[in-house]
This record gives sequence, C-alpha cells and structure tokens, in this order.
Amino acid sequence: MGDFAFDADTRVSPSGVGEFLATVTGRWGGITGVPNGGYLLAMCTRALGLRVSFPDPIVVSGFFLRPGTPGPATIRTSVVREGRTTAFGEAVLSQDGKDVIRAAAAFARLGGSGGSGGSGGSSDGPVLADGPGLADGPVLTDGAPPDLPPPSDCVGVPVGSFGPATIAERVEFRSREFPGWFLGRPTGRPSSEFWMRFADGRDTDLLGLLVLVDSTAPSVLELGASSATIQLTVHLRAHPAPGWLATCASTRFVSGGYHEEDFEVWDSAGTLVAQSRQLAIVQPL
Amino acid sequence: MGDFAFDADTRVSPSGVGEFLATVTGRWGGITGVPNGGYLLAMCTRALGLRVSFPDPIVVSGFFLRPGTPGPATIRTSVVREGRTTAFGEAVLSQDGKDVIRAAAAFARLGGSGGSGGSGGSSDGPVLADGPGLADGPVLTDGAPPDLPPPSDCVGVPVGSFGPATIAERVEFRSREFPGWFLGRPTGRPSSEFWMRFADGRDTDLLGLLVLVDSTAPSVLELGASSATIQLTVHLRAHPAPGWLATCASTRFVSGGYHEEDFEVWDSAGTLVAQSRQLAIVQPL
Repeated sequence: MGDFAFDADTRVSPSGVGEFLATVTGRWGGITGVPNGGYLLAMCTRALGLRVSFPDPIVVSGFFLRPGTPGPATIRTSVVREGRTTAFGEAVLSQDGKDVIRAAAAFARLGGSGGSGGSGGSSDGPVLADGPGLADGPVLTDGAPPDLPPPSDCVGVPVGSFGPATIAERVEFRSREFPGWFLGRPTGRPSSEFWMRFADGRDTDLLGLLVLVDSTAPSVLELGASSATIQLTVHLRAHPAPGWLATCASTRFVSGGYHEEDFEVWDSAGTLVAQSRQLAIVQPL
Repeated sequence: MGDFAFDADTRVSPSGVGEFLATVTGRWGGITGVPNGGYLLAMCTRALGLRVSFPDPIVVSGFFLRPGTPGPATIRTSVVREGRTTAFGEAVLSQDGKDVIRAAAAFARLGGSGGSGGSGGSSDGPVLADGPGLADGPVLTDGAPPDLPPPSDCVGVPVGSFGPATIAERVEFRSREFPGWFLGRPTGRPSSEFWMRFADGRDTDLLGLLVLVDSTAPSVLELGASSATIQLTVHLRAHPAPGWLATCASTRFVSGGYHEEDFEVWDSAGTLVAQSRQLAIVQPL
C-alpha cells in the first residue's frame, strides 16, 4: 500500500481515543495550491473506517470550513451509531487547532462492480433507517458511461498547465479534446467527460473515489470563473473494477454567486461506482 | 406564523446553551407512519438558524440514524464557524436520549427568486472557502421547470391513499396523471413531475423547501419497492416566490439494495430554488 502516493499521503496514526494524527502533503494541491478537498475527505473517511465495524463508506459528506495547508493535522472521530447493517460516524480534521473540514459518513457492506451487491443481512420486513438493502430487489441503470474514444486516442492536458496544482501529477486525465479553458477559449459549457486514474498505477477503491470526484479542474473554468467548495456529498455505489474510470462532470445552475457541480464515475466494467455533488462559491479567476 | 402547521410543528424553544426543546408531531408522517426526514431536518435547521449570524441556509445535510417518533425532542446545536460571508453549524435531534438525525448546514445571505442574488461582501480577489459569492459573476440555467399543465388541469392523489401518511394532509400535489403505483400498475420508471405547495396556504420559504424535497412518495414505488433515507443533502439556491412549486423527482440508479433520489424545485417565477439528493435503502413494500 505505502508505495502509492494516495496510500502514503492519507495515512493516519491513532493518537488517543478516537483521535488520529496525519500529515497533509503538498502533493494534492488544486489550482490555487490549496490541498484538494476530496483528499482531506478521504483522510477523514480512512480514519473513520478504522473505527466502525462495516468496511465500506457508502455516503460521505464534508463541509469545508477553511483551506487546509500542507503539514500536520489531527482527525477527531466519533462513531455515532453502529446498527445491524449500517454504521454512522463523524470526523473533524483540524490544523493548528482550527477545524478545516467536518465530515460525516455512513458505512455498510457494498457489492462489487457488476455483481448484485447487497448490504448483507436478511430481509424480514420493513426496518427503517437500519434495514438491510434489498440485494435481490430491483436494479435500475438509467444512464451509461460517457461515450469516449479509448484513452490511447484521447489527450491529456500537460502536467504543469494548472499552475500550482500538484494533484495533476497524481491523477491522470484523458479527454476527447483539450478543454476550452486550457486553450484560452472558455466554451461557456461547464460540463466535460474524461477518463481518469491514479498516475502511479494504483487501482481506485472507494477511498480513492473520494479524491477523484473532486480532483478535476472546476467546471466553471469554462465560464471564465473559478470556485471553492462549501460542501461535498459523495455516494459510493460499488467497488470499482481495476482500470481507467470514465467520468463526467457538469454544472447546470450558476446563480447568486453559487453553483453546484455533479460528478459521475463509471468503472472499466461499465458500472456506476460513484455520484457526487458539491455546492461551491463562484470566485474570480 | 403559528397559524400554519409547518411553523407550529417546527417550533423550537431554547432550553440551555445551544440546546432547544421541540415536539415532533404526528402530522408529517410518511407512508410508514414515521415522521418525515425533511421535517426533522427543517426543525434542526430552524434551531441552527437561531444561532448563526447569516439568515439563509444554503446547503443542509442530514444523516438519518433512527426513525423519529411523535413526541418531545431535544436539539443540540453548535456553531462551528462564523466567517465573513458563510457560517457553519451542526445540529443533533434526539429523542429519549438517542440520536435520530445528525445535521450540518452552511448559512449565508441568499438572493431572491429572479434577482441576481449574491452572498454579500465585496469581491477583492480569491478567498477560499469563505469568499464572497460573485453576485455579479456568471449566471447559467441549464434546465427548465417541468412542462406541466396548470395545477387546475392536474390531478391529485386523494388524501388517505397513502395509508398512515399524514404528510399528505399537509402538502398538496398535482400531477398530469395519477402515478402508476397509485393505480396498482407500477410503471418501472421511478421519476415524476408535479406541482406542490403547503395545503394550508403557507408560502414556501427556505425552511419549507427542506420538508418539500423529501415529502413525496418514494420514486421506487414505481419499481414495486419502498425506501428509507440514509442521507439527504439539500442545496437552497434562491428564496422562492409565492405560489405553486414545479418539481421533479427521479431515481436513475438502483443497485445492491441502494438508490439515489434527486429532486428539483422551481418556483412560480421559473427560478430553480432547490436541488436535493438522497441515498436510500431499498425496502420491501
């Protein structure tokens, strides 16, 4: 594990009851140089995962209170409920005594890509909020991975084009064509489709998805603006199969200085593995 | 205010430092009779709103740990950051000493429907996580209210058709035709479009939107299943104009015993006022 950047850089060490020490590295910086929010959220979720009795985060929410900085961090966790099939926990990552991100997550047992999955447990009637998922119940896929040429036929914005965005060295992107903002001609359409994967060959898992859904350049760059996340919610729907992930990012509503950004991730087996949505403040470039 | 059910039933009274007493009523029960999650989320947000210095919730997240029950409740709140333009807080609603819902929210100053809005403050360069929204920045509306006939030409499922769902007496719905599940012929398409408003004539505000986005029958009824919310995130994008709200609900992915449900709310001026998404467990009917 430790050979890969993501594993090394999200490492957490127990330092007290429910408390962990971690080091925010400078290797996941966004276009402003500030450590990526999804990266910090993954760190919180990794710490929480050590405390609950279910292996898989299924929904994670993070509120971003302040920019993080490379350096030491403390993560305080609390398990707020352990149910029969679902556990709930909260984590606060702080630096220099100030909260940077406050996260909450639910954990369960998630199916693999392509499988019928299921959250385990028997189904003996309606049980609210802690009932077993109906693993043998209805299945619906109203959507498909973006129709992209193979990654080898796609282009990637050169690392270094993003200013101080060190995350561009950690995550590879391949798209049909170069984005408008990169060519100096924002398209006015804040949506995009692309392949992505960790640059060092690490396969993506559920924790990895948390950073990937937040690691692209903000869609509103195509409107000539930048953005800062206020809140990010990620649904994790299946363990991803190895290989490139096909993803789409889109912003449909920009108003009053705010915008949402939606993100879908499909794995190499064609399974939807994550959906995320964030609310962000529109900022000048 | 107190004349309307929603205001009376979300009333909170300070009972200590950051603590409030409330009464969960039986008037907002869902199809299983359990108090609606959005109703409890509105209660938490109302309490939090009394503690922060910004008037408007802009994003609210709730994790549902246990079903609530009609009766007394305690809401513990904490303000976790007051920034220049954004405040962050958390609230926990508990009953009989057990946490029912754990909520978090960001507050700011939101524009009205149709206006350019803005979160106030001057824009003097990129400020992360607590920067002013670019009220004069880009605006984008990539979507439109559902194309519904006037409410007077639509039909409403009769109150009482939802078993113990008392919420059906609080919220009025009007759709083009009766839903398949109501006619005993689930359509297999878990999406729908309809008008909604409070039945007692109360205009909807930001707090009201929190219950409305969660008050419809679950979309998966059209797949012959029911559901229980694990987590709900609501983006509040503008103060709604008075009158009927045009809404659409949709579930695109059901797998492994889970599904998401998305919800959009448009006001009578044609402005998107809320977007929500929940992750829920699929349950037997």
